[in-house]
Amino acid sequence: MTVRIVVLGTGRIGSMHAALVARQVPGAELAGVFDVTDSAAAIGAELDCPVAATLDDALAIDADAVAICTSTDTHVDMMVAAAGAGRAIFCEKPVSLDLGEVDRGLAAVEAATVPLQIGFNRRFDPSHRGVADAVATGRLGEVHLCNITSRDPGPPPIEYIAASGGIFCDMTIHDFDMARFVTGSDVIEVYATGAVRIDPEIGEAGDLDTAVVVLTHENGAITTIDNSRRAVYGYDQRVEAFGSHGMAGSDNFHEANSRVATSAGFESPPLQHFFLERYTRSYLDQWDAFVEMVRDGTPSPVSGADGRAPLVIGLAAWKSVQERRPVRCDEIT
Amino acid sequence: MTVRIVVLGTGRIGSMHAALVARQVPGAELAGVFDVTDSAAAIGAELDCPVAATLDDALAIDADAVAICTSTDTHVDMMVAAAGAGRAIFCEKPVSLDLGEVDRGLAAVEAATVPLQIGFNRRFDPSHRGVADAVATGRLGEVHLCNITSRDPGPPPIEYIAASGGIFCDMTIHDFDMARFVTGSDVIEVYATGAVRIDPEIGEAGDLDTAVVVLTHENGAITTIDNSRRAVYGYDQRVEAFGSHGMAGSDNFHEANSRVATSAGFESPPLQHFFLERYTRSYLDQWDAFVEMVRDGTPSPVSGADGRAPLVIGLAAWKSVQERRPVRCDEIT
Amino acid sequence: MTVRIVVLGTGRIGSMHAALVARQVPGAELAGVFDVTDSAAAIGAELDCPVAATLDDALAIDADAVAICTSTDTHVDMMVAAAGAGRAIFCEKPVSLDLGEVDRGLAAVEAATVPLQIGFNRRFDPSHRGVADAVATGRLGEVHLCNITSRDPGPPPIEYIAASGGIFCDMTIHDFDMARFVTGSDVIEVYATGAVRIDPEIGEAGDLDTAVVVLTHENGAITTIDNSRRAVYGYDQRVEAFGSHGMAGSDNFHEANSRVATSAGFESPPLQHFFLERYTRSYLDQWDAFVEMVRDGTPSPVSGADGRAPLVIGLAAWKSVQERRPVRCDEIT
Amino acid sequence: MTVRIVVLGTGRIGSMHAALVARQVPGAELAGVFDVTDSAAAIGAELDCPVAATLDDALAIDADAVAICTSTDTHVDMMVAAAGAGRAIFCEKPVSLDLGEVDRGLAAVEAATVPLQIGFNRRFDPSHRGVADAVATGRLGEVHLCNITSRDPGPPPIEYIAASGGIFCDMTIHDFDMARFVTGSDVIEVYATGAVRIDPEIGEAGDLDTAVVVLTHENGAITTIDNSRRAVYGYDQRVEAFGSHGMAGSDNFHEANSRVATSAGFESPPLQHFFLERYTRSYLDQWDAFVEMVRDGTPSPVSGADGRAPLVIGLAAWKSVQERRPVRCDEIT
Repeated sequence: MTVRIVVLGTGRIGSMHAALVARQVPGAELAGVFDVTDSAAAIGAELDCPVAATLDDALAIDADAVAICTSTDTHVDMMVAAAGAGRAIFCEKPVSLDLGEVDRGLAAVEAATVPLQIGFNRRFDPSHRGVADAVATGRLGEVHLCNITSRDPGPPPIEYIAASGGIFCDMTIHDFDMARFVTGSDVIEVYATGAVRIDPEIGEAGDLDTAVVVLTHENGAITTIDNSRRAVYGYDQRVEAFGSHGMAGSDNFHEANSRVATSAGFESPPLQHFFLERYTRSYLDQWDAFVEMVRDGTPSPVSGADGRAPLVIGLAAWKSVQERRPVRCDEIT
Repeated sequence: MTVRIVVLGTGRIGSMHAALVARQVPGAELAGVFDVTDSAAAIGAELDCPVAATLDDALAIDADAVAICTSTDTHVDMMVAAAGAGRAIFCEKPVSLDLGEVDRGLAAVEAATVPLQIGFNRRFDPSHRGVADAVATGRLGEVHLCNITSRDPGPPPIEYIAASGGIFCDMTIHDFDMARFVTGSDVIEVYATGAVRIDPEIGEAGDLDTAVVVLTHENGAITTIDNSRRAVYGYDQRVEAFGSHGMAGSDNFHEANSRVATSAGFESPPLQHFFLERYTRSYLDQWDAFVEMVRDGTPSPVSGADGRAPLVIGLAAWKSVQERRPVRCDEIT
Repeated sequence: MTVRIVVLGTGRIGSMHAALVARQVPGAELAGVFDVTDSAAAIGAELDCPVAATLDDALAIDADAVAICTSTDTHVDMMVAAAGAGRAIFCEKPVSLDLGEVDRGLAAVEAATVPLQIGFNRRFDPSHRGVADAVATGRLGEVHLCNITSRDPGPPPIEYIAASGGIFCDMTIHDFDMARFVTGSDVIEVYATGAVRIDPEIGEAGDLDTAVVVLTHENGAITTIDNSRRAVYGYDQRVEAFGSHGMAGSDNFHEANSRVATSAGFESPPLQHFFLERYTRSYLDQWDAFVEMVRDGTPSPVSGADGRAPLVIGLAAWKSVQERRPVRCDEIT
Repeated sequence: MTVRIVVLGTGRIGSMHAALVARQVPGAELAGVFDVTDSAAAIGAELDCPVAATLDDALAIDADAVAICTSTDTHVDMMVAAAGAGRAIFCEKPVSLDLGEVDRGLAAVEAATVPLQIGFNRRFDPSHRGVADAVATGRLGEVHLCNITSRDPGPPPIEYIAASGGIFCDMTIHDFDMARFVTGSDVIEVYATGAVRIDPEIGEAGDLDTAVVVLTHENGAITTIDNSRRAVYGYDQRVEAFGSHGMAGSDNFHEANSRVATSAGFESPPLQHFFLERYTRSYLDQWDAFVEMVRDGTPSPVSGADGRAPLVIGLAAWKSVQERRPVRCDEIT
């Protein structure tokens, strides 16, 4: 069985997913694309697939699944409609910035009993996965500490920032998911702090560009996260877990694996620039997992609950910054 | 202008090139495929391009260039025909195992004044390129030494070995090219030795599976090469240049960039398995360079002379093994 | 001029210092040793120097300086006496667990105008110093983040723990100093959390064995620190500074710099076991700096104020844990 | 039992050994020093030991062993005299530049049945030892290849060169020993080539400053060695063994383990400068092994035969360069 997928939203991330599905995912086929802008037409032509004029048309295409890659505020409506049409659903993160909306979407999915996978692609990065596996297999014993460094090469446009839900719900949300994934344990308390160090406009938009978060997990592990919107040496993505029997860590790749040594010392190139370079493989493996879930009925590797929890943590982080105290996740409702 | 390319030969390497040209090379288009076996039909269907029944048909397709990916013994005939048809030519390595044949092919290309690029893809690997750049820019001063480690994860089938020209003309030929590329200097003398350590059948076929070669370059640099047909920890590809002002080296990538530390020490995954993993990027950059050469008339990044020289070195290496002495390249005619 | 030094206290750290001064510090001479136990006699015999029976006798030895290496609760009395005797003073960390006592000691030093250097040896570790230099020279621009990982190979005896002032004043105090040293900025606020994960006896002693601290610096930088009393893979000491123009980091040394690769992947040895291995060089460089300060009258590389500040941070950390909120340093008096 | 050692020769290496024996080798005691120059007096004063005026006086000192650290051309006479006096012998490398002389020395040692250890200290470097252990324990299976990179930070004075026996007997001799040590197999054939690239005066003295050697071992392994007298980035000492079941390698240490990353890439310090920094630990472990051999009667870790074999290889290397062909070790008599 080939899993036929309609991609909803053909912006930067949607067009990437459409191209992957069309060309590089064994067992998947791009059944159509849809966007409220003209971008869908070009993508459809390039990838040789039908272009739907409306969401209804998109859901009328003979397909097994949809990939929701539209703007965040439309995710839940898309999810409800797709569930209603019986489609398996891949949904980009975050599901929504509104917890009630998330719950509405997840309820519709549950009611329709369609498979759902949230787009936390970093879980599929082989390096981070190596860390998670070391915990999951018990090699590290009990997990005591987890450290996540997550720094972008540069901030997004200020208009993007304004609609993003802020650094915790837009950027750190990946790290919240990673902390849950690596430790294998839910988060019960959040302490967050941060600063505006890179661009005052980000501060004027009510956001931070530099942040530190401490998470307390149900199993007693403590996670630290540090974020920056601008690491001039490239995309810096590292995860470390420390436990009673050892430690595991993931590291970055450089643009090239070369070095030059002179009397002044050794030099090597910057890190890979950004997520398209670093996480290429994770996007492919994410699709492989989706195809397997839809085709074989295996459990979702990133469930609706996995989509909801990081939003709760993100909202708790904002509350922590505002009230300058640790905030329990059960305070967020 | 889009460069339209017909791929001749759709075996393992040809079908890879066809897919790259069809999908991942900006400014290039797959104009058709041809093979003496049935394999072309499937590739043509998958990549949605014409399938030529004969070489004449393939050269009749409206195209700018051909990619010669057929078996080595047919390369020169293909080259002569394509040059006669005025096509720009990409030709896989080695051009031929017979030096006279190589010269016949290159003469045809020169007579037709068509662009020619030989498939020494490793020149486009960003890590090795970093080493070559350090020499070319003068950062290392005068080059004194070059070390190349080149080990495959496992030997090819014994039938392949039998027709391959032996380890020096099949496998080490890439390293001979790398030595010339990195040092920027021709090779004048070759000392080679080797052994059969992995599979006695390789020895029975008259070949070696383990080899060491010492090259003396025109500029005085000395290169060492070590080869093995079977490195159990993955594809091991390292190049180092050492000069009066410093050293530059390239290194491998691991399957994942993760590590686990326990009381027993640190562990990390094996190297990337083989060339499809390690050299993906080099294949893409090789095609970008080809498109630029054909479209803009820039000089060939890997000329016919660059295709001929490593074969001379390979033949000298075999003579060195047989006669147990260093052999000058000008002894090979 | 040779700087003649009397070592007060010949326990583990004092006898190490005595041996270093006697044998490996150019320009220094071991003028005598003193201890309330019998240990001094053996050290004196081995290192061929006078053994003082009392503190008064020790201060009567013709010398330029003393090294205070006795138990923490006696440091300030020693300091006051040595200052009264006009000796330059090297004092092990922490000066005291009582802030009032620290101030009494520093007042005596100031009144006597004798040179004083506190034993925060990690400032002299070449790797950490590389990080501090990258900040101090402006190469990193403005510092936004600092991360310190500091994990011991195993917890000290429970009796030691009981008298130690707890993890923050005994172990993390080095990291508090490192944070000030690397960022070049004082700490204004502390958030701390922790757990007992390694040994319940540590908890019963009122202490933690696993801790995370977040520091806010005067210059806006935010530091994270993570501590464990037991890293089974060796002594783990890493510091990282991140700023507007780049990042700098220090890393550990392994027991040996070797690796073994098999089909299962790569292996390398554990980290150096503990501070005697990792920080050998820092102890030597610390003494070189002390000799220079005493002989040449240069400013103290680790002043009395540098000894006081980390204790304030440590006390704030304990208050933060108890009150579950960020605590400002100016709350500690 | 404490092993009492008289150090013969107090030049650069002898004074280092005397200080180590006096201060840092448990179970050893410096019983005296001797030199034909005045240098012994200063060393004796500093290390508080008797100074012998003549070799006879030195051998009259109540001692268990001597360390022969005089100039190479006197080694054998010292060895014969010390053996006659019943002393255990540590002898610096090379034993002699004359094979007949070596045999005379070894015969005297054998006749006297005194323990003998040759100063190939690199065998005790923990990183190289890690490689040798991987072979010796069988983890690598059968050894197919061995690669040794050995580059000094700068050439010695030209007068030293003139008396040194040339690069192969002075510098590469360590690598010849390493090749035997790591592969666990004798060398049967040598191919060597080289050049004068650093200083024409070295060439005028009849020596090379850049060299490549290929060794064939009895067990079929092939070793490559590359040498340079001047690596501007520090002392470069790497060993690699490759076998049927895997690979093992040793690597250098940098001056500090720190890095700085900017938009231009990553930087780290040069390598440790030279042997005093890199091989400190090996010198200590070498003495521990000597003490154990003398005290416990264990077999020599670096026997007289281990001292003789590398000289044969060095002489074969010179013959290979002169005759431009591979030379069998049994041609050297």
